[in-house]
Amino acid sequence: MANVGIIGHGVVGSGVADILWNSREVLARRAGETIELQRVCDLRDFPAAPYADRMTKDAEQIYAADDIDIVVECMGGKGAAYRFVKAALERGKHVVTSNKELIADCGEELERIAQEKGVYLRYEASCGGGIPVIKPIEEDLAANRITRVAGILNGTTNYILTRMREGGVSFDAALKEAQQKGYAEADPSADVLGWDARRKICILAHVAFGTPLADSAIRTEGIDRLTREDMLYARELGRSVKLLAEAERTGFGWRACVTPAMLPDSHPLACVSDVFNAVLVHGDKVDDVMFYGRGAGTAPTASAVCGDVLDIVRCPRKRGERPDGAALPALPSFTRQLRLFVRVRTARTPESEVQVLAAFPGARLVQIEGEAFADEFALVTALGQEDALLDAAEQLAQALPCGAPIRYLTL
Amino acid sequence: MANVGIIGHGVVGSGVADILWNSREVLARRAGETIELQRVCDLRDFPAAPYADRMTKDAEQIYAADDIDIVVECMGGKGAAYRFVKAALERGKHVVTSNKELIADCGEELERIAQEKGVYLRYEASCGGGIPVIKPIEEDLAANRITRVAGILNGTTNYILTRMREGGVSFDAALKEAQQKGYAEADPSADVLGWDARRKICILAHVAFGTPLADSAIRTEGIDRLTREDMLYARELGRSVKLLAEAERTGFGWRACVTPAMLPDSHPLACVSDVFNAVLVHGDKVDDVMFYGRGAGTAPTASAVCGDVLDIVRCPRKRGERPDGAALPALPSFTRQLRLFVRVRTARTPESEVQVLAAFPGARLVQIEGEAFADEFALVTALGQEDALLDAAEQLAQALPCGAPIRYLTL
Repeated sequence: MANVGIIGHGVVGSGVADILWNSREVLARRAGETIELQRVCDLRDFPAAPYADRMTKDAEQIYAADDIDIVVECMGGKGAAYRFVKAALERGKHVVTSNKELIADCGEELERIAQEKGVYLRYEASCGGGIPVIKPIEEDLAANRITRVAGILNGTTNYILTRMREGGVSFDAALKEAQQKGYAEADPSADVLGWDARRKICILAHVAFGTPLADSAIRTEGIDRLTREDMLYARELGRSVKLLAEAERTGFGWRACVTPAMLPDSHPLACVSDVFNAVLVHGDKVDDVMFYGRGAGTAPTASAVCGDVLDIVRCPRKRGERPDGAALPALPSFTRQLRLFVRVRTARTPESEVQVLAAFPGARLVQIEGEAFADEFALVTALGQEDALLDAAEQLAQALPCGAPIRYLTL
Repeated sequence: MANVGIIGHGVVGSGVADILWNSREVLARRAGETIELQRVCDLRDFPAAPYADRMTKDAEQIYAADDIDIVVECMGGKGAAYRFVKAALERGKHVVTSNKELIADCGEELERIAQEKGVYLRYEASCGGGIPVIKPIEEDLAANRITRVAGILNGTTNYILTRMREGGVSFDAALKEAQQKGYAEADPSADVLGWDARRKICILAHVAFGTPLADSAIRTEGIDRLTREDMLYARELGRSVKLLAEAERTGFGWRACVTPAMLPDSHPLACVSDVFNAVLVHGDKVDDVMFYGRGAGTAPTASAVCGDVLDIVRCPRKRGERPDGAALPALPSFTRQLRLFVRVRTARTPESEVQVLAAFPGARLVQIEGEAFADEFALVTALGQEDALLDAAEQLAQALPCGAPIRYLTL
């Protein structure tokens, strides 16, 4: 029998408790032994919970209790959660967490402790909510050298972009909708500015490449400067705008960024809409593999947490490690080649064309029919080095009114 | 140390041997112990192979050898492969196979033996090639009650359909292309008629529902009757035609079929093109999850086989079982509600409209502009019971020339 203690009875924690309590038989058959919901810690009272008699307000009764084998941390944040998780690992308890902030910032240290103690630190739910992705990368794709991970890792921004494209609404209106539906927080910065996606790509890259990424070296742009017109140009070009989180590695180092990108409509990631998330992984043997599903929500996230718990019970003796712990350096961004899309908000005249083509030789000009687009046009640059193109776009913006450039990628 | 023996050094087997031989260090680190390519059996000679000294022509030296812990079967077929796998399991050896025919037809019996002996029978590569799907369903989604599995499980037919849509070529021309590219066999029946996809959906449904499906109760239609015009109507309707393999279960039983289907272009499965495969899984907690990747090929398939091998080495003590072994009955097909698309190959006149609407009350008529479609039109029926709609389509086809009906689904 394995005894589980949950710290934090909120959105995720209550979902986990619910599954452990109500699916006891199924889980037992799948795990090969009983999994007991031994204790749940939260400062609030939940008298109506069927396991109310197992609630405690003292986390120590979980992370330090002899009758707890697996600690499930669902508090979030890095303060108490960090202390409790660390304490549990040091006492030789397995830990499962859905806390992306904790793993992104303290994962390395905590994994080292887990490794020393020979216990598991699992966090499938920290990236992509209910989508199986971390374990498939570590286990199913273990025979591969993973060279790239790219994904739509934030449901809030994907919902906003979907509404802007399909509903033709502005960013602000779409954001308001997302907030009304409960997809976006009152302060949406972390989602909208790409910080949440950056955390997740750091975790995924660490899992896939075995090397930690430094936040500071990850170029991060949000979707707050995107306009409804950008969406229409994208459609005209047979593309969709997504907030794309990418990380790749070569023999020399790694490169990662979170930026809006125009993807071909035929690309699997372009077909991911609303609050859904997806992760595309490239391995040297398996080529491209994609995992798609709900990146948030009580039940999906709890499903991922319980998958981790089952795994630990099924195979309690931790073995094996990451492909290579060797810390790789961040690659200088001038090595990245791509195209940019730039919207020019002035009438298309011989003069403006000359200016634009002087800034971007070989650029392809795009004009959309109709009143609304009479006084503007757009361009897709030739393939070039990222920084140089961004500089050129800034230069041009000083001469002509331009929109924020958008990466124009062929993944 | 774990010793592996491979039976069959063909497309898949040679790929597995290559990985085990050349990625020894990586695999060892990931597994926590060395994985030795101990022996490889094939009737042909491979003097150039780096492990030539470990080749044998006698399968018994693998399935019956004391120095083999894990037998990898890559022969295919049900004759010798069945005997060797059974013999290996009975001797308490773990078995990993990529043989879908073997698993679809003899999986139950072989799994029973494996269960008795407490060893693994793993077959991730038998469905969806390199795509991690069986293990994610069994482990990552273990907390879910899976009620539906639907997928594009055959790369050959998906390539043909993609070419018919994008290249505007006929079925025959697309098939020829597929054969020239090596995507289709000289005798393409098994792929084109849906038998291959049926095998795979049987395996996936067994994994997801824990109940074996009877081939005979699975309505199976191929893509051989689809025309280039069908593709154009689909596009007009904002849909794509795919060969869809589906299985669902209720509390009363299961239902499965393999048929061409028109899916909305916005559906993730509609975005799966060329030889790629994808599997959509619906669980009560996680909602929809999709796994996408290459369904065939030496390296991708070998990647999946090696993932299974690593798993066994990491956790050699087999534990846990399927959610419920209870064999469910096949549900009568009259319980299935859907719409049909039917192409009517006669001019759209008041008379023909009357005939069509008499056969399909409430049907929506579709007319494509242009010469080529002057003498025909099409219809999308109202929601109705599958068998009744198919009967009505047959009736109508006796009065007016009609194309083969295509299921018009909203998944």
